[in-house]
Amino acid sequence: MNSFENASILITGGIGFIGSSLARRLVGLGARVTLADSLIPQYGGNLRNIADIRARVTVNVCDVRDRFAMEHLVRGQDYLFNLAGQTSHIDSMTDPQTDLDINASAQLSILEACRRVNARIRLVFASTRQLYGRPDYLPVDEKHPIRPVDVNGINKLAGEGYHLLYSQVHGIRSSVLRLTNTYGPGMRVKDARQTFLGIWVRQLIEGSTIKVFGDGTQLRDFNYVDDCVDALLLAACDDNAVGKVYNLGSDEVVSLRDLAQLMTELVPGGRFEVVPFPPERKTIDIGDYYGDFSLIRGELAWLPKVVLREGLQRTIDYYQANRPHYWDADA
Amino acid sequence: MNSFENASILITGGIGFIGSSLARRLVGLGARVTLADSLIPQYGGNLRNIADIRARVTVNVCDVRDRFAMEHLVRGQDYLFNLAGQTSHIDSMTDPQTDLDINASAQLSILEACRRVNARIRLVFASTRQLYGRPDYLPVDEKHPIRPVDVNGINKLAGEGYHLLYSQVHGIRSSVLRLTNTYGPGMRVKDARQTFLGIWVRQLIEGSTIKVFGDGTQLRDFNYVDDCVDALLLAACDDNAVGKVYNLGSDEVVSLRDLAQLMTELVPGGRFEVVPFPPERKTIDIGDYYGDFSLIRGELAWLPKVVLREGLQRTIDYYQANRPHYWDADA
Repeated sequence: MNSFENASILITGGIGFIGSSLARRLVGLGARVTLADSLIPQYGGNLRNIADIRARVTVNVCDVRDRFAMEHLVRGQDYLFNLAGQTSHIDSMTDPQTDLDINASAQLSILEACRRVNARIRLVFASTRQLYGRPDYLPVDEKHPIRPVDVNGINKLAGEGYHLLYSQVHGIRSSVLRLTNTYGPGMRVKDARQTFLGIWVRQLIEGSTIKVFGDGTQLRDFNYVDDCVDALLLAACDDNAVGKVYNLGSDEVVSLRDLAQLMTELVPGGRFEVVPFPPERKTIDIGDYYGDFSLIRGELAWLPKVVLREGLQRTIDYYQANRPHYWDADA
Repeated sequence: MNSFENASILITGGIGFIGSSLARRLVGLGARVTLADSLIPQYGGNLRNIADIRARVTVNVCDVRDRFAMEHLVRGQDYLFNLAGQTSHIDSMTDPQTDLDINASAQLSILEACRRVNARIRLVFASTRQLYGRPDYLPVDEKHPIRPVDVNGINKLAGEGYHLLYSQVHGIRSSVLRLTNTYGPGMRVKDARQTFLGIWVRQLIEGSTIKVFGDGTQLRDFNYVDDCVDALLLAACDDNAVGKVYNLGSDEVVSLRDLAQLMTELVPGGRFEVVPFPPERKTIDIGDYYGDFSLIRGELAWLPKVVLREGLQRTIDYYQANRPHYWDADA
């Protein structure tokens, strides 16, 4: 039982963090995989992420905002994993129009392309827990009010709205996953645009001090990238997931201070400090967050398998070995 | 006590249905009013709407998508009533990108302009009950889940999201009103792009038969345009309304069949028939809807004053007198 053997699959953001991990898995399952990625330097794409599978995938460098390229690429595909996005909350506040163009407008344009040339495609859209904003209660389930605290959250909400609407009205079968903090090999570590964990890993390896913002008590949940890939695949091959939204999450809830403590234990000489929020981060901070993922556990039998210590160790090992490709001068 | 005397006020969509009624009121209050309107033939702008106040307002024909025009126009204004929008649910499904450009992207661009050149402006944004989708319960209050059933609902949600966010994060003081079916003199009657009531009024006056879609039992609430203008003004001059969302609505809830019955009584020879939904309307129909407006009643002391029979009579009288300007050959 392998829905993906010989299947034609398009992954937007395919040279990025999660996209490349998904591609690796799908190549292993015998799929014919095409990766669309803009390779914009500020975003997640990095050719090192696919160095080991480069010969077994089709790479198409293009921007999801390029509607003609996208219309060409969606033709004939069985599945589309729609992972391309502008992920930086801060950038969405300083350059909101670009965030809108990528996270909302381009998504609508991709769905229109599917409607025109490939209405039988199966889609999974990577959304984010960011659109819940500051939680009213914990853990946050899918019924929690939607109250984005930044432009990124508003546009991602529109992006998932289009997917659900096109599923319901036009029969373009789509599922939406609301990802929480995802980490692992391949994540952006040059800066915090994708996840603060990226910059923490880099700082640890460089021997500088991790900065924990606020008082360090903020709670978070984390998914190792392989667990996230599991969820994407389960959603794609289950008809019950069509038109649905699922939270990801983890039972392993930790404070940022405890996380920093754990990470410093994994790298000799590692250390952290707790510092006040920079003002531009304070205004969009959401306080504590962890998700209720009982819906996807119940309906799609998804469970995160990699515990935090193990996942962090694998991640740190990867970046220690691959450092020149991610942040040294020639990256 | 008149917050608007000598105030500088910009109204987008100012030559449209609600915008022109608002302009008339503000001119009467001694405000300096500028109307921005694209006059796109498929939309709500009609110069007849402002014939009586033409000499007392400044008209600037431009599109809200024109960011340079908008940045010029928001300078120095005390208030911005942001009413321009693509209102057709059907058009949003056939041309979703245009709906996005006007209802989401242009709104973000206007807010960015305010942030750059006039951060002290006071904004009111006209949103819609459409973003609730098919109600879970009635009357629908502001806590009801948001589940748009068309592209228009998704983009209007983004539009209001930007207003609330810019209010909270950047201090651009904004209020959002979720309008229900608004009717009255000045509404578009050429077709159903703005409200089905427009086309009903025209058909009655022309002597053709009103078509009620479905079984005619769908419940709706309606606001006469003067009541809607009251709400816009109350929201604009109350600091408690900053960063808030309010439903409008009416206690006078009627079925479409009863509404058609009432309207045919107001025009000699008027008649209606109940016919099946056209397929493109069926998919985005929301069933029964009426709003809970206790929040705005409690916080801003707003109450609709014009009963349906009276408002409809005034509306029909207006179009009987002004018919050549709204749908005859030279309109």
